[in-house]
Amino acid sequence: MSGRKIKDLSLHASGKDRVDWARQNMPILRALKQRLSVERPFEGHKIGICLHVEAKTGVWLETLIAGGASIAITGSPGSTQDDTAAYLVKELGVEVFAWRSETFDDHMENAKRVLDTMPTIIADNGGDLHHLLGKDDKYKSLCDSIIGATEETTTGANRLREELPSFAFPTIIINDTMAKRIVENRYGVGISVVDGIMRTTNIMLGGKTVVVIGYGYCGQGVAQRLRGLGAHVTVVDTEPLTQLEAHLEGFRTGVLEDVLGDADIVITVTGRNAAIQKQHFDLMKDGVVLCNAGQNSSEIDIGSLREMAVHEHTLRPKIEQLTLDSGKKFFLLAQGNLINLAGGDGNPIEVMDLGLALQALSLECIALSADTLNNEPQCVPHDIEQATLKAALQEWVDKSHA
Amino acid sequence: MSGRKIKDLSLHASGKDRVDWARQNMPILRALKQRLSVERPFEGHKIGICLHVEAKTGVWLETLIAGGASIAITGSPGSTQDDTAAYLVKELGVEVFAWRSETFDDHMENAKRVLDTMPTIIADNGGDLHHLLGKDDKYKSLCDSIIGATEETTTGANRLREELPSFAFPTIIINDTMAKRIVENRYGVGISVVDGIMRTTNIMLGGKTVVVIGYGYCGQGVAQRLRGLGAHVTVVDTEPLTQLEAHLEGFRTGVLEDVLGDADIVITVTGRNAAIQKQHFDLMKDGVVLCNAGQNSSEIDIGSLREMAVHEHTLRPKIEQLTLDSGKKFFLLAQGNLINLAGGDGNPIEVMDLGLALQALSLECIALSADTLNNEPQCVPHDIEQATLKAALQEWVDKSHA
Amino acid sequence: MSGRKIKDLSLHASGKDRVDWARQNMPILRALKQRLSVERPFEGHKIGICLHVEAKTGVWLETLIAGGASIAITGSPGSTQDDTAAYLVKELGVEVFAWRSETFDDHMENAKRVLDTMPTIIADNGGDLHHLLGKDDKYKSLCDSIIGATEETTTGANRLREELPSFAFPTIIINDTMAKRIVENRYGVGISVVDGIMRTTNIMLGGKTVVVIGYGYCGQGVAQRLRGLGAHVTVVDTEPLTQLEAHLEGFRTGVLEDVLGDADIVITVTGRNAAIQKQHFDLMKDGVVLCNAGQNSSEIDIGSLREMAVHEHTLRPKIEQLTLDSGKKFFLLAQGNLINLAGGDGNPIEVMDLGLALQALSLECIALSADTLNNEPQCVPHDIEQATLKAALQEWVDKSHA
Amino acid sequence: MSGRKIKDLSLHASGKDRVDWARQNMPILRALKQRLSVERPFEGHKIGICLHVEAKTGVWLETLIAGGASIAITGSPGSTQDDTAAYLVKELGVEVFAWRSETFDDHMENAKRVLDTMPTIIADNGGDLHHLLGKDDKYKSLCDSIIGATEETTTGANRLREELPSFAFPTIIINDTMAKRIVENRYGVGISVVDGIMRTTNIMLGGKTVVVIGYGYCGQGVAQRLRGLGAHVTVVDTEPLTQLEAHLEGFRTGVLEDVLGDADIVITVTGRNAAIQKQHFDLMKDGVVLCNAGQNSSEIDIGSLREMAVHEHTLRPKIEQLTLDSGKKFFLLAQGNLINLAGGDGNPIEVMDLGLALQALSLECIALSADTLNNEPQCVPHDIEQATLKAALQEWVDKSHA
Repeated sequence: MSGRKIKDLSLHASGKDRVDWARQNMPILRALKQRLSVERPFEGHKIGICLHVEAKTGVWLETLIAGGASIAITGSPGSTQDDTAAYLVKELGVEVFAWRSETFDDHMENAKRVLDTMPTIIADNGGDLHHLLGKDDKYKSLCDSIIGATEETTTGANRLREELPSFAFPTIIINDTMAKRIVENRYGVGISVVDGIMRTTNIMLGGKTVVVIGYGYCGQGVAQRLRGLGAHVTVVDTEPLTQLEAHLEGFRTGVLEDVLGDADIVITVTGRNAAIQKQHFDLMKDGVVLCNAGQNSSEIDIGSLREMAVHEHTLRPKIEQLTLDSGKKFFLLAQGNLINLAGGDGNPIEVMDLGLALQALSLECIALSADTLNNEPQCVPHDIEQATLKAALQEWVDKSHA
Repeated sequence: MSGRKIKDLSLHASGKDRVDWARQNMPILRALKQRLSVERPFEGHKIGICLHVEAKTGVWLETLIAGGASIAITGSPGSTQDDTAAYLVKELGVEVFAWRSETFDDHMENAKRVLDTMPTIIADNGGDLHHLLGKDDKYKSLCDSIIGATEETTTGANRLREELPSFAFPTIIINDTMAKRIVENRYGVGISVVDGIMRTTNIMLGGKTVVVIGYGYCGQGVAQRLRGLGAHVTVVDTEPLTQLEAHLEGFRTGVLEDVLGDADIVITVTGRNAAIQKQHFDLMKDGVVLCNAGQNSSEIDIGSLREMAVHEHTLRPKIEQLTLDSGKKFFLLAQGNLINLAGGDGNPIEVMDLGLALQALSLECIALSADTLNNEPQCVPHDIEQATLKAALQEWVDKSHA
Repeated sequence: MSGRKIKDLSLHASGKDRVDWARQNMPILRALKQRLSVERPFEGHKIGICLHVEAKTGVWLETLIAGGASIAITGSPGSTQDDTAAYLVKELGVEVFAWRSETFDDHMENAKRVLDTMPTIIADNGGDLHHLLGKDDKYKSLCDSIIGATEETTTGANRLREELPSFAFPTIIINDTMAKRIVENRYGVGISVVDGIMRTTNIMLGGKTVVVIGYGYCGQGVAQRLRGLGAHVTVVDTEPLTQLEAHLEGFRTGVLEDVLGDADIVITVTGRNAAIQKQHFDLMKDGVVLCNAGQNSSEIDIGSLREMAVHEHTLRPKIEQLTLDSGKKFFLLAQGNLINLAGGDGNPIEVMDLGLALQALSLECIALSADTLNNEPQCVPHDIEQATLKAALQEWVDKSHA
Repeated sequence: MSGRKIKDLSLHASGKDRVDWARQNMPILRALKQRLSVERPFEGHKIGICLHVEAKTGVWLETLIAGGASIAITGSPGSTQDDTAAYLVKELGVEVFAWRSETFDDHMENAKRVLDTMPTIIADNGGDLHHLLGKDDKYKSLCDSIIGATEETTTGANRLREELPSFAFPTIIINDTMAKRIVENRYGVGISVVDGIMRTTNIMLGGKTVVVIGYGYCGQGVAQRLRGLGAHVTVVDTEPLTQLEAHLEGFRTGVLEDVLGDADIVITVTGRNAAIQKQHFDLMKDGVVLCNAGQNSSEIDIGSLREMAVHEHTLRPKIEQLTLDSGKKFFLLAQGNLINLAGGDGNPIEVMDLGLALQALSLECIALSADTLNNEPQCVPHDIEQATLKAALQEWVDKSHA
């Protein structure tokens, strides 16, 4: 068995069940695995990965391994499924360095362990591996043997562009595709946010006044799905065209300050910090539910709310009651973390099937033709995006009406 | 402290948190509690109750106690929250006879313990207490001191009418109101079924072909909410007018045998046995997800499916994979039990707020004027239904736009 | 050629085109015609009819004639299509007494001409023929040779029950069926009201705040279809359960006085007089559009509005501008008449196909077995309603996916 | 009175009524008129215009005149309202050269008459005026005194770029703005297409299977609004991402050849020629309704259909019945012209309010600062687009909830 640092190898059986269920709902990767197992594009490559160690990722790793890859992987603090990690080690021979309770320092150590395995291709998430390769003297030399990389997130892409202006290899940025924006942001996130709120609170969404702040792709999805459940949705967006679009779509719209007072639930989906600021809390009514579905936990200025509160108490898991001196209560979900991830299971499996297929094909492109790419961050090649979309159509539409 | 049989009294703190969150979302009962605490209609009465021992019930019990009642309660096998039970005993002085792992025999013993407390009013669920009062010689005499009762369910009401043709006291049947049918069946169930499926499976509902069997109030809610999430919903109903209604509403409709082959997910909501029969399994495609949101677990003929299966395996909690000799796989959710209860938290809190307010007002009617009612099962009085609806409007609509 | 009084026989060609288009979209009547032309249930009968003389009625008359009937018909003031009338006379040999510009007195004379043809079966609309048979000495004796009748409307049914307590023959009331209520009221009216408003005004419904007063079957249809076009719909209904239903369905609701001030458009669909009263006009904003989709033109108290106005002017056809002394303007559509009839073409053809098939089968029931029915107003027999629904399903659903 | 060539000056009164109703629903232009009447940016300018001579255009002309402009205008063949033309001449002193029955040759003569008035600014539609200025020797010299222009359509913009590579003045292309694409194409067209079909046919859209070909902004609007009325919509789009978007939005999708057989109604909205080709007609069922809502009348290959037909007949106005030798019937609406324009009143008034305000502000930009712009076709300046959007928000949203 290969190098690893995980919680408990004996958990592998339940990990297998998780991966089995995920695989059942990931037909795009299943089909891809068949082709890759014949063509073996990753033969001789070690792929060093940073990505959530959970069941959907497991199906993706199977696909890469079938294509000839060896794998070393670390996850993110808090998202590792320890049983899935055990399955990956025991059944797939993956070198895993991740456990659920790891700290951020643990995480960066684990990232180094991944690089210590001398990968020739990198699949990064948030730019942590790239950061070490660019900033840590121990790993800089490794860049010579790395032929290329992928980066999953927009945040990671921005970090790359800032930290690493001169670059040693090409990095394909997965998130910068319309395929991900439409499928994942509008449809995946919309549904999973609804799921996250319902399972966290058990409250009725039908008839509730929900203020959705931000009407980009994610916000559109959130607003549409909530309306689909009977909620009374008010959309706030500061861009005039976007507000007009929401208005004509049938949503109430208005300036944040004018509409907050009616809200039973407030959801931020803006992709920027402090969409809800200190002065806004005064405008809300007693008992309002606050949650965030945007980029990070700072869309709501929770720090100020906690300062204002004289009492904090956790009711159900992931529901905090914050009470002001006046007696006014706020209910904060999942500490302001993304409600679909922190309160649910993240994006639906099928959505990740498409996103991870895009990843796998981008890695194949690196393996087969990295030398034809410039050494810089770049978009997913158009033909890869089209091929992934066509595969999704075949599995989701064509086969559905066989 | 009063008589009781629960799991562990020391769990009371987390039970309090649960009840606190429920109470926050039950404004109708909160308002009712204020009035009852002044008028004390239950003064001197012991109410013997059979109902799920969980947080929403807890808020209802507080309301009855504020109205002067003493309470003895038992629950249902499998639905008791042990921490809520502890809270009820410790903080409210309720006599609780219930624990989560109790067997059906335990349950019937517990029901007897409730009757042993010599209640003067009964609040029944499924007719278990009525059954003992009518059939068990030990408890028959108790009928003389009981002034009246309520019964929550239609199933219980039917049992009452069959078992107890001549009756000793009036019983108000809660479920036979349009208020419950519209609010709970169409809106509550629709949303909670969607919730149950999503949290059990993490699959994408958008774009999925879902066959909903049954388009009564529950089925309408399920079909509408699924469509609201982007699912492609096909409705099957054998009643011509109902099918036509679904067709004009924009749903695909058809005969069961014709539409099953396209289904990614099949949901039964018919209220009758064997809506899905043995011969239907042949028509479904490999990998279909089966679940039930109807009256009981026999809407899908699971027995036949299990007989046909050569392999059964539980993947995620509440997802069983049943594989035929041919390799064809079926994924059965929650063993065919109601997916909103077994896979989620049941109806949204607010919906139970209305339903339990209807219960509380019916009990008040029994306490104050049982002698004006006939000794038979009967509908909720019209003025009580109207008062409950007006209270719901006041809390859900009027106060929402203060 | 038979007796007749119409505008101009030479218009028949364009009447034929109208009826051809209607027939194309009336598959239920087409199928029924085939059967009736073989079975000839009306052989030897003259059917005396009062119904709008327009193309859809023409297709229905063809059906009755194919079944062996002779026909004499009068229409309603204002709704007769003169070219269709010419076609009916020239091509079908129908005795028609109707023209578009006829007065109410003309109409009653025409109704008498119909009775003068000595019909043996009556098909009435609004009770005018029944009224003559019951109240006019000249026609009372005719009752002896009449074996039975149908009456289309609820208004007519009420009139029958009031005016004619003791009755000479059975009358089947068409409108008292769930089939008509669901199909025609909820789906037909909803769509045709939207049509009527759009073609009268050319205004944008998306984004407009529309207050719909009344949430019965018609009101549900109107509210749903407007929302489907992106309007911001507020529902007003005084019945608590109905208001709650609208609220949970996702509509804003409220008390009339509270919500009128936001309205760009106000639509009455209550089925009662003076839903909008004098004092309500003060609450509306300048430029509000008023229209009615309810039972009759008195749902809005137009008389009071006209009294308040200092200036009245017709802008586009069927848009009146009423200006108050203050300069505040109201735009009244179609003088408060039903906007779907007065501003459009009435119910969609297919909806009338179902309704007129119900009529035709009820007339067949009269022809074949009037002697088994009581001499009183009565519902459509259940088997006729079911047969009509099944025919609709066959044409609208089964054949649609051939 | 100025130079003019119109149908009949005495029609002015009904033209005034039309313009009055349009103005009532054009608050953006009304507000703009107030500012322009103070600032008079067009003082001393003659604006030579080619645009539909109808009521909404009339309100726009009032705005320009209030800003100091003199106006000469011609329209398009078939779209001129003769009464509006009379109003413009009589009340506003506009030089109008347009009548409803004009031929294309008449139209080009009228365009020359407009140029003969020696305009200093041009507002073009389809590039006809630009074409004369670039190609007709008589008018080339006029370019020296013209300071700039606008062009309404994408078609006109393409023609400009092809015909006039070297250019004498700046031309702002109105249609190339997201504001128009979202507001007009998705929301305006969607609603007006539904309107056009309903008033042309009186058929039931609820329950009908409608195949929408093309899912761009216009197609999205058409599909969403039809679904909002209860239609069963199938979307066909050849772009994989677009098809996937439609699928996840809940629409059925598929390859054209596979889905045509189910269609009751087929609508083309592709923006390209021959979306429906000869071979497709064989796949459709008897009685299918064909209509076009795309760029021009060639989206359906009507020529081939007419060749195949053995019989053509016009039923209702704008419904042609084309019958094949086999007896199979096709119903073609409005001869394949845009159904919202040819079958209805075109875009809703409010949508044109926004589009014409964009035009007016672009003309103001030309009048005030043409010298700062390059002599070439160019986008609407960003600040003008934003100003127009903000004005729309103020009128449609802010004032709506006063």
